[in-house]
Amino acid sequence: MKLSIGKDLQAAGKELAASIRAELTRERVLALNLIGSPGCGKTALLEAVLPQLTRTFRAVVIEGDIATARDSQRIEAVGVPCILINTAGTCHLPPRLVAGAYADLDTSDLDLIIIENVGNLVCPSTQDLGEHAKVAVLSTPEGDDKVLKYPRLFREAECVVLNKVDLAEVLSFDRKRVVEDLAQIKHDLPLFELSARTGEGLDAWIDWVRGRYVATYGGLP
Amino acid sequence: MKLSIGKDLQAAGKELAASIRAELTRERVLALNLIGSPGCGKTALLEAVLPQLTRTFRAVVIEGDIATARDSQRIEAVGVPCILINTAGTCHLPPRLVAGAYADLDTSDLDLIIIENVGNLVCPSTQDLGEHAKVAVLSTPEGDDKVLKYPRLFREAECVVLNKVDLAEVLSFDRKRVVEDLAQIKHDLPLFELSARTGEGLDAWIDWVRGRYVATYGGLP
Repeated sequence: MKLSIGKDLQAAGKELAASIRAELTRERVLALNLIGSPGCGKTALLEAVLPQLTRTFRAVVIEGDIATARDSQRIEAVGVPCILINTAGTCHLPPRLVAGAYADLDTSDLDLIIIENVGNLVCPSTQDLGEHAKVAVLSTPEGDDKVLKYPRLFREAECVVLNKVDLAEVLSFDRKRVVEDLAQIKHDLPLFELSARTGEGLDAWIDWVRGRYVATYGGLP
Repeated sequence: MKLSIGKDLQAAGKELAASIRAELTRERVLALNLIGSPGCGKTALLEAVLPQLTRTFRAVVIEGDIATARDSQRIEAVGVPCILINTAGTCHLPPRLVAGAYADLDTSDLDLIIIENVGNLVCPSTQDLGEHAKVAVLSTPEGDDKVLKYPRLFREAECVVLNKVDLAEVLSFDRKRVVEDLAQIKHDLPLFELSARTGEGLDAWIDWVRGRYVATYGGLP
């Protein structure tokens, strides 16, 4: 069936997000919202994990970018359908634009929606897009000091992906500092240290996605 | 003398910025506004160039961060005075907070103000803080595709710093793509390819700062 959210497009963003989430949950679709800085590797992560995730899930990506189709073309190149939203300057995906994308989906053919938000460590963390969980993506070249400098995303997220760990040594990246800062933000926030480029550590995050689906719906599709 | 901008704090941000810039210009103080993603190396760039710049200029840094004093402590550690503005969640430095910082400065003791904005490739580019020029800072780990994906900053900037070029090879970073994208945005936008970490390329950007002062005031202080 199609989500009947057209009539809600005038509702406040918060109510709109809650009604989207309720409807997705009824349809047994899990929605994740990936948030991180420009170039932290959100698209690279998706390119690396989608081939495996799509063995379990019928998936679609909602790709948020200020301009260009560069990221959505990369997603389509790995064979996963992708809805591109160009925000034309806006620094985050707003709930109403995402509602429009949800409305185009047939949820009876779908298990997993991954939203890749606009590259921005700050603003997207303030927006509820009807997702079940936010995923914070950080990368080693950004430095080991970012968690407490940009705390809100890490408070909102259900897990943290630390990408580009293959560069940690050359960058003298102190992973202990990230672990300690995260512990100040939230107790037991799962941290996945991986490299989308080398493939190191990807399986653990894929297992987290599968586990998040099971936790919500009692089993895999 | 002290800038008399207190009475203007109620003015619209745009008028406020214009009046700040006019007053700074009367006082022969050059203000630069550094903008780039979290972890692109804005603070590292300042740490690397301030020891040389302060041979020519009496300088102060206005440090914008959502939370923590991590960056301002690094600036103070190289012996340069620093005014820290914590935005408490806001994704950019707003003109009114910066006006408050300007008001604390004695411009008769000052030639150069460098504002380090909140780490964000998007929102700070929309704000006029009374600076004479915006400087866009990009880094190779962010990827060679960012200029057209986040075009506004590059339209607003007077020059672009491409940091972490020492990592370009291991990252298969295609500098030609950046050059071509920048040419689409703006004709003859100066690009400084450098590494704050190794020191490579710093002199050319230092010369740009010195040249920008001379272009505005007809000579060095």
